[in-house]
Amino acid sequence: MKKLNGIAASSGIAIAKVYELKDPDLNFEKTSIDNPGQEIERLESALEVSRQELEKIKAHTLKELGEEHAEIFSAHLLVLGDPELINPIKDKINDDKVNAEAALDEVATMFIEMFKAMDNEYMRERAADIHDVTKRVMSHLLQVTFPDPALIDEQVIVIARDLTPSDTAQLNREFVKGFATDIGGRTSHSAIMARSLEIPAVVGTKEITGAVKKDDQIIVDGIEGTVIINPTEEEIKVYEAKQAAFAKQQEEWAKLKDEPTFSADGEQVELAANIGTPNDVEGVLNNGGEGVGLYRTEFLYMGNSELPSEDVQFEAYKAVLEKMGDKPVVVRTLDVGGDKEISYLDMPHEMNPFLGFRAIRFCLENEHVFRPQLRALLRASAYGNLKIMFPMIATLEEFRQAKALLLEETDNLKKDGVKVSDNIEVGIMVEIPSTAVIAKQFAKEVDFFSIGTNDLIQYTMAADRMNEQVSYLYQPYHPAILNLVNNVIEAAHAEGKWAGMCGEMAGDSTAIPLLLALGLDEFSMSATSILPARTQILSLNKKELAALKDEFLSLSTAEEVVALAEKTINK
Amino acid sequence: MKKLNGIAASSGIAIAKVYELKDPDLNFEKTSIDNPGQEIERLESALEVSRQELEKIKAHTLKELGEEHAEIFSAHLLVLGDPELINPIKDKINDDKVNAEAALDEVATMFIEMFKAMDNEYMRERAADIHDVTKRVMSHLLQVTFPDPALIDEQVIVIARDLTPSDTAQLNREFVKGFATDIGGRTSHSAIMARSLEIPAVVGTKEITGAVKKDDQIIVDGIEGTVIINPTEEEIKVYEAKQAAFAKQQEEWAKLKDEPTFSADGEQVELAANIGTPNDVEGVLNNGGEGVGLYRTEFLYMGNSELPSEDVQFEAYKAVLEKMGDKPVVVRTLDVGGDKEISYLDMPHEMNPFLGFRAIRFCLENEHVFRPQLRALLRASAYGNLKIMFPMIATLEEFRQAKALLLEETDNLKKDGVKVSDNIEVGIMVEIPSTAVIAKQFAKEVDFFSIGTNDLIQYTMAADRMNEQVSYLYQPYHPAILNLVNNVIEAAHAEGKWAGMCGEMAGDSTAIPLLLALGLDEFSMSATSILPARTQILSLNKKELAALKDEFLSLSTAEEVVALAEKTINK
Repeated sequence: MKKLNGIAASSGIAIAKVYELKDPDLNFEKTSIDNPGQEIERLESALEVSRQELEKIKAHTLKELGEEHAEIFSAHLLVLGDPELINPIKDKINDDKVNAEAALDEVATMFIEMFKAMDNEYMRERAADIHDVTKRVMSHLLQVTFPDPALIDEQVIVIARDLTPSDTAQLNREFVKGFATDIGGRTSHSAIMARSLEIPAVVGTKEITGAVKKDDQIIVDGIEGTVIINPTEEEIKVYEAKQAAFAKQQEEWAKLKDEPTFSADGEQVELAANIGTPNDVEGVLNNGGEGVGLYRTEFLYMGNSELPSEDVQFEAYKAVLEKMGDKPVVVRTLDVGGDKEISYLDMPHEMNPFLGFRAIRFCLENEHVFRPQLRALLRASAYGNLKIMFPMIATLEEFRQAKALLLEETDNLKKDGVKVSDNIEVGIMVEIPSTAVIAKQFAKEVDFFSIGTNDLIQYTMAADRMNEQVSYLYQPYHPAILNLVNNVIEAAHAEGKWAGMCGEMAGDSTAIPLLLALGLDEFSMSATSILPARTQILSLNKKELAALKDEFLSLSTAEEVVALAEKTINK
Repeated sequence: MKKLNGIAASSGIAIAKVYELKDPDLNFEKTSIDNPGQEIERLESALEVSRQELEKIKAHTLKELGEEHAEIFSAHLLVLGDPELINPIKDKINDDKVNAEAALDEVATMFIEMFKAMDNEYMRERAADIHDVTKRVMSHLLQVTFPDPALIDEQVIVIARDLTPSDTAQLNREFVKGFATDIGGRTSHSAIMARSLEIPAVVGTKEITGAVKKDDQIIVDGIEGTVIINPTEEEIKVYEAKQAAFAKQQEEWAKLKDEPTFSADGEQVELAANIGTPNDVEGVLNNGGEGVGLYRTEFLYMGNSELPSEDVQFEAYKAVLEKMGDKPVVVRTLDVGGDKEISYLDMPHEMNPFLGFRAIRFCLENEHVFRPQLRALLRASAYGNLKIMFPMIATLEEFRQAKALLLEETDNLKKDGVKVSDNIEVGIMVEIPSTAVIAKQFAKEVDFFSIGTNDLIQYTMAADRMNEQVSYLYQPYHPAILNLVNNVIEAAHAEGKWAGMCGEMAGDSTAIPLLLALGLDEFSMSATSILPARTQILSLNKKELAALKDEFLSLSTAEEVVALAEKTINK
């Protein structure tokens, strides 16, 4: 038995055997062969197994993610059956008397280089397809496992260095009981995804991929942030008990599902959820969300080959609004760029994408992208309680310009007799320091603020939150962050507006007493964090905490802030 | 005659013919030839001209920049004389009966690919050498000009899309009378360099390289920010008069060279200069600098093949301190990373280098780099009025850690009987929003602040200042910047400390009244801006300006700030 410590990314306990999601070792030796017929048979058989796998993955993807995502696998199947690729491989085996691995590699490399060299996006995509397919066929020739989340068909815990968005999109909750990764933090993509899938996860263990081997059994403790490799019978019993206790606690939490959120001294706040697709709404309601505090609309645009039409968007927004009834839904307009690239939008390659042409900056320059989204939102507004939020606002001019476009489209729709709600609040993300600093000036013009701590922290600290070498500077509790958050809340209240937070900080149990002290009105978090947060707030006295506000704001370091915050929790 | 508008980057008027610094067009056609002997002669002759050029560039570089910089050209000369490269080219001409261009290209490409493929830094550098040399030889085969700043030997105005640091390092003031570029702003490298060389420059004309051709005469007006192409006789006369008037104004300014800096109502401030090397000190004193507000020490580390030793650094710091006498010299410790890469330091490749592992972050993790610099500074402190400044401080812990290392090295030196000044002020750059926000907490521990606006603006606005697509967001006059600057100055004064500014904003005539209103103590700028700034401050009433402080701080947009600032200047 071995125990690893990491970061608790998603609550709960999972016990199962490991499934390693890693690039297989495809090294081979080129050898001379005597029997070409036998090599060609090996090749045929590897092609056939690959074909079966791809059919399975394609079907799974079609079912889980839809036609557009499944197309890539149709392209792979075409490559696999293309005689222009396969015949030269067989010829090479026959003529050069080399093993199938060498023939496959040489022919594929030639085609890949040829297609890559063409100045044509379509041809470069073909090069990528051949590359992917070759890897799969090679793995079967070498009889090494070529892992794929869509092929999982028994209960496992997924182990990986990190999980990509496309990996996590394919994870099947029926079989994947939890996961553990080498890298990542609470705000990394894989951590957010784990909470959204409601499966236990531990990230940032540094060494899990090196520490386990095939068929090891492991325990992922997403409450403590630990992973136990090959536990003893006794340990399994201990964790099964812990699992049962957690289930019981979840039952306790569930009792608060339909309750409003009050502090011990009777002050009300709103607990909302961050979502990415209409499918997430069910989880929000099951977890007692009082609204959607952040609907990230990027998912409509990502993994597609063209812009989603106004109608496609309208249907998605309408679906969320209808399901949420009269509960508020804050929709963030398109936030592309930064680490979110969308191939068909032809965005520039940038030296510092996080400081680049993204979100509202891109949208204001690309009205053909922005206006259809605004129209879709306005049309959907008739079906629920919509609030619209612009991301990455750094200047008042940007807000005014975005709002003017929204009003123009409102007029256009009304002229055409389309029903548009008259009560749409229009607010902004506060995620750029400039906006947090002059929140007072902004508060006169916006209807609400939602503080996006993930970006606000990285800009305020000048530290890329994805860069491990400066991750120690990604400090949610740095006194500067608290002062900026306080400035935003005070500015909002002075103008009778509300201030929310939709960064990961809003669901953090250490941050909650602090944010309550500062007077935050709305906390938007992963759906599964809502009931624990409601339970915690029930036990906190807001007035007592508010008395500590000035002390909090005058502290010098993050360490001092955490120490004082924990004192208020533990007292 | 054609007139282009750009950004006035360095004052003065230049009139001369153009020298285009651009990549030559090296396209060629592969042809069959009948007379290989003649092709080989053409090759030999191109090699010989290249050799003469490289000798000349090497000698120039040796004289202007020293041995280390000249080494690269020795390497190029070796490549040029290497029979292992040259013989195969001749063989190919003889055997394949192709022209010299095709033979050169094919053989060179083969060697370059071969060396590049080797996993060895030395070999990859050889590939780069062959690439550079091949381009030069090819240009002579094709008889197109291969421009090189070191080869300029008549009075010209340099025209380029942009100037790289290595281009500007080679510019010879004797012949280069001015320059104009397509891109860049007042804070771009080429603009800063122009002011340091004291030659007129206009940047960001967007189209100068396309608008001029060889032997055109142009006028660069670095006062208005315009470029006139092929002026008439009359226009030349007008500009010659303007040139004379500017010279006269410089004489007027020069009268203030040894004066202190007072506002109209008798309030004193300090005007200091930003420098990069000991050679710059002469310009500081000639331009009436009251100190050095920023000594960038990166130049000691850049363009070298290894770390500068403690002694080499000591000599450089001592030279600056001695030349400056009892005037203060603020030395910034090493600020590498971001856009400043140093090959031998083996820094990581980063997705967002401006938000990455740079400056103090790197130094605190690499004491073998940091401690020798601190020791060199401490040893030099005995020779003048030294102040030490740490860059990119985001947390108090970083400052405490850096200062602790400084105190450790002070003790070590004193134990060894080395003289160290007892009056070294230790301060920080304020260029990260977190530090500007909690300046009050920092002011208790640091001796001074120097606001680095170039970085502070880019982080506060979340806009890469090198990225043209978001350059409209690089707003020195955004009210958030003013509020942060004000916060820093107030925090310093509350603790009896001083606050300076060493970003480009400090020398900007629109910003100066504002900064005076906010109470800035020290303004550090390009040396040539000092006398105009002193002249301007003489005419400004600080108390009257200070009365406008609250109005400035409550404005909503940069446009409003500029409008009010200009009203105070023009009234």
